[in-house]
Amino acid sequence: MKPVQHKVPGTDTVVQTSRRSFLTAASTGVAGALAPGQAISETLADVPPRAPGAPLGARSERSQYVQLARIPEATPGKRDVNPAFAINSKTPLDKLYGTITPTDLHYERSHAGVPNLDPAKHRLLIHGMTRKSIVLSVDDLKEMPTISRVVFIECTGNGWENWKSADETLTVQNMYGLISTNEWTGVTLQFLLDLVGRDPKSTWMLAEGGDAAGVARSIPMTDEIMSESIVAFAQNGEPIRPAHGFPIRLIIPGHEGNLNIKWLRRLKFGDAPFMTRWETARYTQLQANGRARQFQLHQDVNSVITTPSGMMTIKPGFNLISGLAWSGHGRIDRVELSTDGGKTWKFARLNSPVLAKAQTRFELEWVWDGRPTKIVSRASDEKGNLQPDRDTFIRKTGTNALFHYNAQQPWGIDALGRVRNVLA
Amino acid sequence: MKPVQHKVPGTDTVVQTSRRSFLTAASTGVAGALAPGQAISETLADVPPRAPGAPLGARSERSQYVQLARIPEATPGKRDVNPAFAINSKTPLDKLYGTITPTDLHYERSHAGVPNLDPAKHRLLIHGMTRKSIVLSVDDLKEMPTISRVVFIECTGNGWENWKSADETLTVQNMYGLISTNEWTGVTLQFLLDLVGRDPKSTWMLAEGGDAAGVARSIPMTDEIMSESIVAFAQNGEPIRPAHGFPIRLIIPGHEGNLNIKWLRRLKFGDAPFMTRWETARYTQLQANGRARQFQLHQDVNSVITTPSGMMTIKPGFNLISGLAWSGHGRIDRVELSTDGGKTWKFARLNSPVLAKAQTRFELEWVWDGRPTKIVSRASDEKGNLQPDRDTFIRKTGTNALFHYNAQQPWGIDALGRVRNVLA
Repeated sequence: MKPVQHKVPGTDTVVQTSRRSFLTAASTGVAGALAPGQAISETLADVPPRAPGAPLGARSERSQYVQLARIPEATPGKRDVNPAFAINSKTPLDKLYGTITPTDLHYERSHAGVPNLDPAKHRLLIHGMTRKSIVLSVDDLKEMPTISRVVFIECTGNGWENWKSADETLTVQNMYGLISTNEWTGVTLQFLLDLVGRDPKSTWMLAEGGDAAGVARSIPMTDEIMSESIVAFAQNGEPIRPAHGFPIRLIIPGHEGNLNIKWLRRLKFGDAPFMTRWETARYTQLQANGRARQFQLHQDVNSVITTPSGMMTIKPGFNLISGLAWSGHGRIDRVELSTDGGKTWKFARLNSPVLAKAQTRFELEWVWDGRPTKIVSRASDEKGNLQPDRDTFIRKTGTNALFHYNAQQPWGIDALGRVRNVLA
Repeated sequence: MKPVQHKVPGTDTVVQTSRRSFLTAASTGVAGALAPGQAISETLADVPPRAPGAPLGARSERSQYVQLARIPEATPGKRDVNPAFAINSKTPLDKLYGTITPTDLHYERSHAGVPNLDPAKHRLLIHGMTRKSIVLSVDDLKEMPTISRVVFIECTGNGWENWKSADETLTVQNMYGLISTNEWTGVTLQFLLDLVGRDPKSTWMLAEGGDAAGVARSIPMTDEIMSESIVAFAQNGEPIRPAHGFPIRLIIPGHEGNLNIKWLRRLKFGDAPFMTRWETARYTQLQANGRARQFQLHQDVNSVITTPSGMMTIKPGFNLISGLAWSGHGRIDRVELSTDGGKTWKFARLNSPVLAKAQTRFELEWVWDGRPTKIVSRASDEKGNLQPDRDTFIRKTGTNALFHYNAQQPWGIDALGRVRNVLA
């Protein structure tokens, strides 16, 4: 079985697959090579005739044949609720392609709904242990040097539905829909800190949002955070949307979503954490030994197969396995796939460029023999972090915790091709 | 004047600027450092109080304070027309950030409006000089190995308003709005060709769209085109929108927009160009000597300053110059900026990663002394192509032509800070 392989110039991607394994799919209706003697006109008989189109417009809308929506939910597992009570809204990873998340489908997690802020009246106060205090308007920020960067934001609670139990009807959107990747544009935190003058004794930064809940987090001034963070005013080329922090949002690549403060209105510098309720009552992690851990801020290496995934059905023969991998520590180094429940592993193909702290698309071709099995992915990053299997993960963390779930996600496939969530 | 400079980890970008030159802007109202003795509370007096927000939803909409729209036009210069007569719709480059174009604002150029195709009935026929003919459904394509790539598409007519005359009221959207950059996902052309079996004697490919105009182009089977082209079904993470080719579109990175056939329904291989009316009557280039040139297919190295740009007004003191550069031949190597009408040049900062055949954002800080001047950018690419000044360009090409305008774009600034289009 000779593989088809070629490198795509201008990228590092090598596309490789077995043509023959792909063509076995013809027997199941995929890849409609003409049967001997069959006329082309016969296979095209159902194609509608050409017709004049609709006028061009000021904005392009989606096709009527495409239905894309997030799932708002009240608490984990409480879905399809009255949106007025929703606290998060999950990205449909199973219906998306590539790595960029459509702007209107970027996940949401809010503690007091979506404020409607007037950018002309919004201000960012920077003060505390600095040489001077400063109040900036959004227009001020837009006149400063900018950087754009494609990064993921992930809610620290992403995946928590699978921590203790395993509802087999969960989809990848239900379980992993609290992560999204956009291009964010704004001013570097370093530039702003240079502007106000850093006090060498300052070690912590408070970032506070302008929502009614007043979400505020203490952020350690590590070299990594201070050199990579962005006070952003744009996402995917346009002004940030209200649900995602309009007019400005703090972006801290690779760190807990809740640190990426939306509707940012204040940065205060000090020499100790500020101990807001968001880091005492809420975003702490109860460990196996009963003690709570604070400030577990990096999002760990993770991956999930998005196709096929929960509640899909596949057919025997050729199947394309596709998924997403990411790490808050840097670039994805490799993704391995198992189609026999973890007994053997193969390297998946990574789409390039593989960007640090962004989602990376992986793929692998697979011919399913029709027998029940489990498929699972595991990612590792450039820092050598390896995504653990669930048993190893639970042994280490216990099951008291709610956050930073990054165990491998197996999907079970039964003899009818039904794909379901299963415990590892 | 000590520059602030730091490298952003995980990227190749170095942010460098003069803090002092930035702070001179304080005198013009930018960068609101507190005046001595001024209370913080005083500067924040107008900030509205926190208020409960709107419910979370299935999709995030834009802020009511953000107005973004393309400009539909009938023929060059005929704007604000009845959309029923529009033939293109231009991207508002002056209102966008970073490099990704919002999906609904990707430019449009259509010859028979926007067809409303049913993906379940759409077919792609691949035939001609191949080992076999094949008819593929959209679902067939979605089960094949994919690649995602961020690339620009540019109408070959982009910039043509400035070819012969120079209406000073033109904006950058009017003049350069027929280029956009998205992440495109689909199957490589190479994979499809392997599937049908290439006839070694084949040298040309016909690509035909499913619109009423039946746009069809002959495409030479160069190594570059055959290894980089994609039959795409997704843009920016979601199914392609109808205006941009739903359900499938041919993507040929770096080449004329009209080769990127929308609503793709047929690929036919042969040993000579097919000579459709699109390459005889329409997309040929009348040269200075009166002869027409066919198949000028690459988009050349180009750049334009988007801020400040036509019809904006600036103030003396600190100004951030920002723009976009691109080349159909590969990566942008450097962008130079002149703020004295081309007498002296400085290197602009390029945002990373600099991707081949994608738009690259450039920036440079500038302190305007308030005297009339011209600002202009020039880009060069990794193949050594340099964007020409307008005189050099016109001497070479004459003014009979309509397509492939890539001369430098100067913006004039008068003593009142008004930015206007000017001839070079």
